[in-house]
Amino acid sequence: MTLPFLFHAQTPDYFRVENQIAHVTLRTQPEGIQAVYLRHEPDNEEYLVEMQRVSKLGELDGWQASFPLNKDREITQYVFKVITEGATVWLDARGVQKRMPGSEYHFKYNQSHQPPEWVSEQIFYQIFPDRFCNGNPEISVKSGEYSVKNGTRPVVAKEWGAAVDKHNGYGGCEFYGGDLAGIRSKLDYLQTLGVTALYLNPIFSAPSNHKYDTTDYLTIDPHLGSNQEFAELSEALHQRGMKIVLDAVFNHTSCEHPWFDKNGVGEIGAYHHIESPYRHYYFFEDGSQNYIGWKGVDSLPVLNFENAEVRNYIYASEHAAIRHWLKAPYRIDGWRFDVIHMLGEGEGARNNAYYVKQFRNATKQENPQAYVLGEHFFEASKWLQGDQEDGSMNYYGFAHPVRALLAQKDIAYHPIEIDCIDFVDWLNESRAKVPWLNQLSQFNQLDSHDTARFITLLENDQARMNIALGLLFTYVGTPCIYYGSEVGLEGENDPDNRRCFPWERVGHVETFQYHQRLIELRKTSKALQQGSIQFLHVEPTSFSFARQYGEDTLLVMVNLDSKACSMTLPIWQLGKPQGRLVSLLGNESALQVNSKVVVNISSESIQIWKLE
Amino acid sequence: MTLPFLFHAQTPDYFRVENQIAHVTLRTQPEGIQAVYLRHEPDNEEYLVEMQRVSKLGELDGWQASFPLNKDREITQYVFKVITEGATVWLDARGVQKRMPGSEYHFKYNQSHQPPEWVSEQIFYQIFPDRFCNGNPEISVKSGEYSVKNGTRPVVAKEWGAAVDKHNGYGGCEFYGGDLAGIRSKLDYLQTLGVTALYLNPIFSAPSNHKYDTTDYLTIDPHLGSNQEFAELSEALHQRGMKIVLDAVFNHTSCEHPWFDKNGVGEIGAYHHIESPYRHYYFFEDGSQNYIGWKGVDSLPVLNFENAEVRNYIYASEHAAIRHWLKAPYRIDGWRFDVIHMLGEGEGARNNAYYVKQFRNATKQENPQAYVLGEHFFEASKWLQGDQEDGSMNYYGFAHPVRALLAQKDIAYHPIEIDCIDFVDWLNESRAKVPWLNQLSQFNQLDSHDTARFITLLENDQARMNIALGLLFTYVGTPCIYYGSEVGLEGENDPDNRRCFPWERVGHVETFQYHQRLIELRKTSKALQQGSIQFLHVEPTSFSFARQYGEDTLLVMVNLDSKACSMTLPIWQLGKPQGRLVSLLGNESALQVNSKVVVNISSESIQIWKLE
Repeated sequence: MTLPFLFHAQTPDYFRVENQIAHVTLRTQPEGIQAVYLRHEPDNEEYLVEMQRVSKLGELDGWQASFPLNKDREITQYVFKVITEGATVWLDARGVQKRMPGSEYHFKYNQSHQPPEWVSEQIFYQIFPDRFCNGNPEISVKSGEYSVKNGTRPVVAKEWGAAVDKHNGYGGCEFYGGDLAGIRSKLDYLQTLGVTALYLNPIFSAPSNHKYDTTDYLTIDPHLGSNQEFAELSEALHQRGMKIVLDAVFNHTSCEHPWFDKNGVGEIGAYHHIESPYRHYYFFEDGSQNYIGWKGVDSLPVLNFENAEVRNYIYASEHAAIRHWLKAPYRIDGWRFDVIHMLGEGEGARNNAYYVKQFRNATKQENPQAYVLGEHFFEASKWLQGDQEDGSMNYYGFAHPVRALLAQKDIAYHPIEIDCIDFVDWLNESRAKVPWLNQLSQFNQLDSHDTARFITLLENDQARMNIALGLLFTYVGTPCIYYGSEVGLEGENDPDNRRCFPWERVGHVETFQYHQRLIELRKTSKALQQGSIQFLHVEPTSFSFARQYGEDTLLVMVNLDSKACSMTLPIWQLGKPQGRLVSLLGNESALQVNSKVVVNISSESIQIWKLE
Repeated sequence: MTLPFLFHAQTPDYFRVENQIAHVTLRTQPEGIQAVYLRHEPDNEEYLVEMQRVSKLGELDGWQASFPLNKDREITQYVFKVITEGATVWLDARGVQKRMPGSEYHFKYNQSHQPPEWVSEQIFYQIFPDRFCNGNPEISVKSGEYSVKNGTRPVVAKEWGAAVDKHNGYGGCEFYGGDLAGIRSKLDYLQTLGVTALYLNPIFSAPSNHKYDTTDYLTIDPHLGSNQEFAELSEALHQRGMKIVLDAVFNHTSCEHPWFDKNGVGEIGAYHHIESPYRHYYFFEDGSQNYIGWKGVDSLPVLNFENAEVRNYIYASEHAAIRHWLKAPYRIDGWRFDVIHMLGEGEGARNNAYYVKQFRNATKQENPQAYVLGEHFFEASKWLQGDQEDGSMNYYGFAHPVRALLAQKDIAYHPIEIDCIDFVDWLNESRAKVPWLNQLSQFNQLDSHDTARFITLLENDQARMNIALGLLFTYVGTPCIYYGSEVGLEGENDPDNRRCFPWERVGHVETFQYHQRLIELRKTSKALQQGSIQFLHVEPTSFSFARQYGEDTLLVMVNLDSKACSMTLPIWQLGKPQGRLVSLLGNESALQVNSKVVVNISSESIQIWKLE
């Protein structure tokens, strides 16, 4: 049985809401379609709305229907049931199905909660502050100045660019002196590259270099700068039209946080004083010094959100930490909440959803346009239905499938073997589970401070790296570069993935221009930022997809084979059967389109074309 | 890439819980397995427990690990990650996967809520009371005695066996005189067939023949019998070791219920009296006679559970309707809750989950061993995670796929085209989304009072009907016969699917013995009642699966092709590589098993074998 061609997206050409009524368009091949129903669930029961054939777009028929958004919940979901000659098929958010799709794959729209539109328009850049640029050597950590890990490891100051120590089992005590002044000094550089938004790893006071062990949520770490310097950095970014997102580590504190005070520096810390007012900020065994640490790490005691004082301090009160940095003079544009799925009450993550919603609400109360980004190394669908996060660190739906396809490594660097068909299924399934607007707000990276550098995973295979980068800037979700990738910075897993930025490479590496070109394409194409996605060709070693928004249509083609291949692409499925394809990335000659087009692609490469 | 053989089930051989610790066994092929991890989520984060190779079972290796059940939620979920030579694969509740499975397919165990074990041991029989047997003609409805549908259609008494009127648009006013006395008179017959439990369509006072339009939740309809007769019937069933489940229609009442009183018979009904104490039992537009009816049907006004009096009457108070019939002298064994997903507050089904949990709690408070069965025509995974329903009317995961495969009809009788591979995927996916114990408690039927009779959908193709029946009694879930199927009763969709039981056929139809034989197999096989399921062979036109519980191993093979086929079955995957297969359904000679076995199956047929 050949499946018919059916297409729907939640872009304005296909989906529009007015006065609680959704107006929906489905496009189909013209032949063999006998009837089309939009199926929705106003009260958990199926209602079928017969769609009307009302328009033509090239060789496609347009079918329309309107239906009321759900009144009993925030999310409205729907799918299409299509009767063809002798069979019934369904269209869900993955694609055409031979049978009724499971509820998780229905198209979804959250009428109450939508991410800010600016997110998908950005080019993000992640900075690990100690390793980006030293702008103020006076405040740099000095060797032996203090000790980390509960006083057991003296800090070490190292020369810029010296190799990180991969073997001491704790890379957190090595400092290279990067700081806020350094970041500020490189804003021109970042804008030359094309970056429009920064995501900084934690910058609040904390002993380690990574600063995921906070000791003061309201103060910039003095080795990175001051609160005033941060306010100035934020202001400078905003004046350039740029955005800034900070890392929020609210699941746990450092064991040296004054509330906990494992070092016994103060008089009222929870660790040494059963009567401490902060005792119930954490999870202590009754009357003992046993407590819960994040993943069992005893230097990172977990906060207890059952305690109203913790809630007030972190999000609920007027000057809570979450609110503090969203207000003037800092006015950050969003939070990246660290291990947000893990926080809650007691052991485990009891009532996690409740607290994530509170984090969201506090954030949006201060700035309705702020970006609520959650860190999840695995599937985050539950957190991405609209009422919790705008987007997640998209390991599950982007970094991991790309890594599996191109580097044959899974999440834990175990070998994995998937082909392009599996890859596309993986992308489609993970995307389909969340509302479209949240798909657009996913935070896509190839690598981060928590993974090996992608170029290193590829064993420096630049051809595959170029494919990966092409996907990063053309796929659904906002792209983020991990600092230094644009000059080919290498690095194995933590701590080697946090090497100093090699400033000497700037101007001497080709990949910088390749990044610039891709960024430029992304920034000038509404289709890449917010357009629908449609796979036109999927074979074991090659695939192609289109992104479309209004008249803007881009095509991406990938060949992973060690031989050149040619793809016959059904351009008629895009509703623009005539025209020409213009290459945007390489120097291929333009191609005339007549319903279809044949494109030749050399081995292990990616092409990006515009359909004019 | 060939996927390795991996198997796990939640039967006692593979899964055991003691003191909040789960002890888990995975079986794998012996070759090529380098490491095995059990992955669970104690706090929403991945934890990998390395499994130890500890046992052999035939040609299989056994791997074991133990881990604590979740402390932060009722459901614990887990999957297996297996490292082979050059690849990583996963085992989830569907089977072996090439990539990390979505959360919905992980193995699930609900430590707080489990269905009663007796459910999966039953042979259920559904009776539409007006059409089963007339045991007391004195109470039968007389033509013109009253009118239904808000007084617009006089009731019609018809002769037993006369054709139902398919064309008047409302079959609800025709009566044939079936009653409780009739059911009681046929208990010997039902036991001869092998039935152990009855599910009755509604029997409380209601004008229509189907009685989904209740006018009194506490009284048996006088045309069916009395409360005392029902108590006696229940007692008689229990004395025979049988069970009884009643139909509960709490989403809406009849518009003739005294609370609503659309006929204006009383003085205080909500429809005619804005000041009625029952006004807020329903959803009226302010100051008007406009109200919400179930699916827009104005004779079935929807109840408003926001109203504490409704909650008290239906489930919360000591003598609430749900509790009333569970108490002595009625002591029913469970409720089948009609359209349970639709009830709630206001338009739609707001807070539905809350009310379903309350229904469950009220039921279990009266009888912890009662069966909570929900009616859902579509996917019910959300309601089947343990804390709401024990099982559902399993249209989504059984009736619909079987209908699609064998009758090429979908839910709405549209054509559908699936092969055995799609069919098995459908079964596996729908099953995998719910905890194993809830899978066992699903209520499987080929047809019901809400569908065309399966034999009619098959256009009387007895070969395919025998395959369907074979699946009904060997698949996971408790089987239910819709009255009359055992003597081949035909019928198109409602109202024709509710024909009178043709008692004259008893003793004259072969299918009765076929039912008896399958029932006997089911009742004497723990494997069929509660055993694991393992697909051994899946091709487009044929498939085979095994059910296993301890030493009890049954195999089912289906060939849908118009030609005979032979299947080579990898019996070694069952951990019993030597032995013999004995045919339980036909008269095939026993077969010797040596790791594998070849079985020949004639065209369009099912075979059931026991592995000894």
